[in-house]
Order: sequence, then structure tokens, then C-alpha cells
Amino acid sequence: VDAKEADFVTSTLNGVNPADISEVIRELDAEQTKFVIDLLDVEVGAEIIVNLEEDRQSLFLENFTADELATFVDQMDSDDGVDVINELPIEKREEVIASVENEEKAGYILDLLRYEEDVAGGLMAKEMIRANLNWTIQQCIEEIRKQAENVEKIYSVYVVDNEGKLLGRVSLKKIILSEPDALVADIYEEDIVSVGTHADEEEVALTMQKYDLEALPVVNVKGKLVGRITIDDAMDVITEQAEEDRQMMTGISGDVEEDDTVWVLSKARLPWLVIGLVGGLLGAKFISLFEKDIALIPAMAFFIPLITATGGNVGIQSSSIVVQGLASYNAFEDTLLKKMLKVFFVAVVNGIILALIVFGIVIFSTSDQAMAGTVAIALFSVVLLASFMGTVTPLALDKIGINPAMASGPFITTANDLLGLTVYFMVAHFLYGF
Amino acid sequence: VDAKEADFVTSTLNGVNPADISEVIRELDAEQTKFVIDLLDVEVGAEIIVNLEEDRQSLFLENFTADELATFVDQMDSDDGVDVINELPIEKREEVIASVENEEKAGYILDLLRYEEDVAGGLMAKEMIRANLNWTIQQCIEEIRKQAENVEKIYSVYVVDNEGKLLGRVSLKKIILSEPDALVADIYEEDIVSVGTHADEEEVALTMQKYDLEALPVVNVKGKLVGRITIDDAMDVITEQAEEDRQMMTGISGDVEEDDTVWVLSKARLPWLVIGLVGGLLGAKFISLFEKDIALIPAMAFFIPLITATGGNVGIQSSSIVVQGLASYNAFEDTLLKKMLKVFFVAVVNGIILALIVFGIVIFSTSDQAMAGTVAIALFSVVLLASFMGTVTPLALDKIGINPAMASGPFITTANDLLGLTVYFMVAHFLYGF
Repeated sequence: VDAKEADFVTSTLNGVNPADISEVIRELDAEQTKFVIDLLDVEVGAEIIVNLEEDRQSLFLENFTADELATFVDQMDSDDGVDVINELPIEKREEVIASVENEEKAGYILDLLRYEEDVAGGLMAKEMIRANLNWTIQQCIEEIRKQAENVEKIYSVYVVDNEGKLLGRVSLKKIILSEPDALVADIYEEDIVSVGTHADEEEVALTMQKYDLEALPVVNVKGKLVGRITIDDAMDVITEQAEEDRQMMTGISGDVEEDDTVWVLSKARLPWLVIGLVGGLLGAKFISLFEKDIALIPAMAFFIPLITATGGNVGIQSSSIVVQGLASYNAFEDTLLKKMLKVFFVAVVNGIILALIVFGIVIFSTSDQAMAGTVAIALFSVVLLASFMGTVTPLALDKIGINPAMASGPFITTANDLLGLTVYFMVAHFLYGF
Repeated sequence: VDAKEADFVTSTLNGVNPADISEVIRELDAEQTKFVIDLLDVEVGAEIIVNLEEDRQSLFLENFTADELATFVDQMDSDDGVDVINELPIEKREEVIASVENEEKAGYILDLLRYEEDVAGGLMAKEMIRANLNWTIQQCIEEIRKQAENVEKIYSVYVVDNEGKLLGRVSLKKIILSEPDALVADIYEEDIVSVGTHADEEEVALTMQKYDLEALPVVNVKGKLVGRITIDDAMDVITEQAEEDRQMMTGISGDVEEDDTVWVLSKARLPWLVIGLVGGLLGAKFISLFEKDIALIPAMAFFIPLITATGGNVGIQSSSIVVQGLASYNAFEDTLLKKMLKVFFVAVVNGIILALIVFGIVIFSTSDQAMAGTVAIALFSVVLLASFMGTVTPLALDKIGINPAMASGPFITTANDLLGLTVYFMVAHFLYGF
């Protein structure tokens, strides 16, 4: 590619699956990518553009004129077309849409641009097969033939009434097995799951997973069929969500990968490290208030890591269980009070056990009763406190619309550390009677 | 349900989607569940049993006789049937399989029992439509009609030669649009993605996601078509994997949920907390070696949380990036050396920045140059060390076949804490020249 040997590239990539070409192209820069895509079929090129990682798309699209982009968008499903257009600067968007040859598609895209990217309306494609309740199977087949170019994967034919309201579906299997003159009204399945245009993307993914659907019809507030979401988009939602949660928990901002440059990797990690640093410095400041106590009894310093580490572990465990609970949309939610009571009991049980272990070990190894008592009581308090914080924080974050997985991240664990230290030194101060 | 009012249950649940009934049933115990399922159609009951969470299945299945189970298994796809049978004690397995009426299905299940649960062979179902290369479309349709009961979702007809070797596929859409006397050989797509029976379940899920497939054919070593995996199973693999990674990272053993009992929740969390506790006690023991130093300069104790927290954060970030890299099966892997070099440079950049910040702040607030130098140098060393450990540990775990996400768990972070403390006190000892 570096040598721009067009013949070699064309002959090598000819007939290769676009998904595989996409993988190779990840290693190239924007200009090289354009060079390769220009050599390929428009159809294959369109698929590769769709497969590009989101953060590379906008950079890459700059190299194409509005006309060139329009020919690619012409080959895409409307949902993918919208995603690409959303990556463009506002002025270029209109230019591209105006140049899309297929007017129906241009209309679809304009329509889809109205929705947020993370709701059902933003995930759905307008391409699908719809059949009127009064049609025969033969008419359905004619419609499929007409739309064959537009709708790559059909799965089901959706049945609507004269007003376009979604009534049910007929599977392709049933169409194959029915007589051509059978009426849709006689054979369609009325029992159909659908979502509204404003349903959250997570809800979409969970619904498709729960009912094992490969396509989910989307209806507007009046029950009119306006689009459908296919399983590949739902899968992307699930993996993105898992990825995002993991990054929240590990304190890496943005979408970084092993093969990014040193500087990109450093930048993504620094903000959280600095937050941790500030927390650590606050901790240092706080401990320094007890400087005299420590000078008198240096053993107090020994257990600092024990206290902070246990507080951190308990906090992360608690918030993780809450985050999981929030994600699973359980039908029968316990009340908040009942939830908190349970968290409290679990914390008491674990706190007592851990405190007893520590008390035993410290007494056994130092015979310093005051120290053993201090550490045990502080540890018990820290477990209670960290459980409480670990439960409340994700719930609170969720309420104000922030990803609750954030609660397992560095910011909150640092806060937990500080709280733990406070408890520890207060208990010590009290027990030793300074 | 408590009052066992059969009529009420039947009338309420009649016509409700089995996936919804499954959700309601999660709130019941094994006996109540059996009561409800006995009232429902065998077909619906079978679907509910498949939907039961894995850890409840075995408990629940004890309440049924082998004969009863066999009638349910008769209604399941072979892949689900095997999953259920795998939950039974060995003796009962044979009994159930012997009682399955559909002999073909019994044969399928026996065949599938040979595979591990986490490879392609363990995920696939034997039910699918296969067509000989020499058939006409009409013959395909006849085959679909014959198998309509067995194969719930068809997606594609797989094309095989006389030896049963997989050659390609014909989509249902194409079957609908082709003339009945067209030959399969003339219209089938040769370009087909398949996996071997021993492919890892993660590879299966990634392949289906990469190529946007809703069904993936499975072939044996000779290229013979032996089964197919549907997208719902791949989705389950992805969510389970994400869940497992999350639990590894947060130190919760086993599959716990918010609505488990206090005792179950405590038990799942205790082992990791105890590991953390032992680590903390080792840390205490270690710090106690420096008791005299601390008595002299209590300020040394102030920065303990700063050092351990930063080490922990850096370690988790590094291992998280590596784990992500391992999961994505990148085609162009950097060499190990190149990877380590990059990790090293990122660590140097971040380490220098953090060290400078800390040095500035400590000098500014205490004017204690030795202390500022100690903390800065120790912090820099800890960032380097934690990056190294965070990178090497998941790679090493992956090599010996342990889930690398474990490296972000409490065990490793505790080890990192200890390492960080060692570095800190050694540097302090050296700089202060005790």
C-alpha cells in the first residue's frame, strides 16, 4: 500500500470479505484508507466505511467530497447512512443528503436524523418489508422482489393496517410454506414485540435478547410502524456498553486501544491518575493532622493500607452488585428500604468476620489490645461505611443520569479511602484517649 | 400462586409470552415453579425451563421425573436439550435420553453431549435445513416443510455435497424469489463463513459479530456440516463474558445477584475480602520493619495511601488495556517486545508528570526537600512498576489459561500495594540515609 501499487491491492483484495478488509485497513492512516477504498467496488467501500471505528470515521470522511460520500451512502442501509452523516460537519451533511441519488433513501435519512443516536429511533433502519393485512402471500412475494435490492436481510414481513399501524408479522418460513393465494390476514402472528422510537438503546438490546429476536419493529406513539432494528445493532450496543462500563471502572477516559500512540494512551489515563493523586494528597494532609499520635505510636501507620484496601474492595463489590441490578431491569424491584437493609446486613456479617480475624491476628502477634481493638473496630466501621457508599453512589448517579458504573471508578474509590482513614484515626484517637 | 389456585394461574398466564412468564417465575421457589409449569402447555413449559438461570435449573429439575423431563426435552432444540441434560446427575441423564420419544432428537443430544460446553460444538444445535447441491428449489421447499416443526428459525438453507461437506448457503429470501425448478447449484452463495467444532465460544461470538451473521454453520475437521449456532446463543456468550470479567475485576466469586439472600451475598464476597485482609496484614508487617523511621519522621506515613492508591490505579488501567487487547483477537499483533516498550514509555510519561506535580505540591506546602524528593521518586517508581505488573500479569494468566481479567481483581491489586510500599520505604530509607 505504501508504494501505492494499485494493481497489487486490487488483485489481492478482490473477492475478500469486506469485514476482513476492514480489519486490514485499521492499520492504515486516513489517506491510505481512501486510496484503498477508491480502488474497490462502491458497495464494498460503503461496507468498509460503515465498519470503521467511530473515532476514525470523521477524520477519514474529511478526505472525500460530498459527491463521493453520497455514492457510498446510496449503498448503505438508512441506519448506517445516518451514522456516517452524523460524523460530518453540519454544512457537509446537507450537501451529501442532497447528492444522494436514491430519493427514498435521502428521505429516510432526513427522517432518521431527528432521533438521538442512543434511542430506538437512532438505531433503526427504515428499510423493511411491510405488508397490508388484506394482501395475499403472492403480493408479499412481489413486494419482497421489489425491495430485494434495498432490504438485505428480511427475517419477517411486518403486517400493517391501512393506517400503517403495526398488527403483527409473517415469517419468511411461513411465506415459503403458504399457498400464494393465502391471505396475510389468515396466517399472520398477532403476538409481536415492538418498542417505541424513544426507547433507550439498552432497553432495545435487553428486549431483543429476552425474546430471542433477530429484528425488532419500532413504532411511533400512534402505534404506526416506522422502522426496525436488526440484531447486529443490538449486539453492538451490548458490547459497547460492556466496554464503557469497564472503562469507567478502570478509569480510562475515551476509547483507547493498545495500538494507539504513547501520547494518546498517556492522555487517556492521566486525568484519573491526577484525581487519584489529589485524593492521595488530601489523605496525606488528613493523616498529618495526627502527626503527633503517629510519632507516639508508629504502629498506627502500619494498618493504613489495610484500612484503605478493605474499604476499596468492599465499596467496589457493593457498587458492582448495584450496577448489575440496575442493568437488568428486574420486573419485581425490592423497595429501596429493603435493599438498603439487606446491604446493611451483608456488611454487618462481613464486617464482624473480618474484624474478628484481624483482632485475633493482631492480638496474637503484638499483644497490644488497644491496637487490636482499634484496628478491628475501624475495619468494621469501614466495611459498613464502604458498603453504604458503594450502594448509594451508583443509585444516586443513575438518578441524575450518569452511568452508574462510574461509582466503581477511581474518583469514588479515592473518596472511600479518605472516609476510611477518617474513621480509622477517629477510632484510634478515641480508644487511645489522646 | 401461594394458594395454588390452578384456575387463576392458568387463565392469567394463558397467551402470555414464555419469556415474560420466565421473568415472573424467577420470584418463585423450585416447588412453586413446578406447580406453574405443570399447568402450562408442554411447549411453553419447555421454553421456560430453557430460560431458567443455570444455577437454579439443577435444583429445579430434581422435582421432575425422567419421563416428565423427556417430554419437555422433546420440545426443545437439541442445543437447549443438551444444556438441560448437562444439569442432571449422570444416572438420570441416560434415563431421560432413553425416554425422549423423538429418536432423531435423542440421537442429536447424544451426539452433542460429547462436546465441552464452551466450544462451538457445545453451542450448536443439530436442527437446520441442509440441501444437496443437486436439488431444485422445490426440493428445498419440501425439506423446509418436512422440518418446519423441528427448525424454528431457519435463516438460511445450507448447501452440502454428497459427502455432507459444507459448500455454501441459500438465503430464504433467495428461495422465495427463485423459480421452483431453479437448481441450488446455480444460485447458492459460495462465500460462507463457518467454524470448527472445537472453536472457542468467544471466537464464535466475535466471528458472528464481525460478519453480522444470525447463524453460523459448524463443520468438523473434514469440512462436513455438523450443526449451526444461532445469534441468541452468541449474544448470551457475550453478556456472560462481560459479566464474568466484571466479577473478576470486582472480586465477587460466582454468580450473585442483588436478590440473593444475605448469607449467599456475604459468602460470595468474603473470600476476596479475606485475601485483601491478608495482604493488608502483610503490608502492616512490612511497614512495621520501618517503625523507627516512622517514629522519627511521622510524615513518612502520610503518603502511604497516595503511593498505594496510585499504584493500584495504574495497575488496573494497564491490565485493563491488555485484557481488552487480548479479547479483540487483532490480526496484526505487535510483538511482545514492542508492546512492553510502549507500556514503558507511557509509564515514563505519566510517571514524570505525576512525580512533578507531587514534588511541587509537597515542596510548596512543607518545604521539606527530602520528603518531596522521596515521594516523587517513589511515585515515579511505583508508576513504572505497576504498569509493568499490570501488563505482564494478564499476559501470564492468559498463557496458563486463566481469565486475564483476574489481573484487575483484589489479589493482584493487593500484591501491587505491597510492591509500592516496598519501593516507597526503600527510597525513603535511601534518601534520608538512615
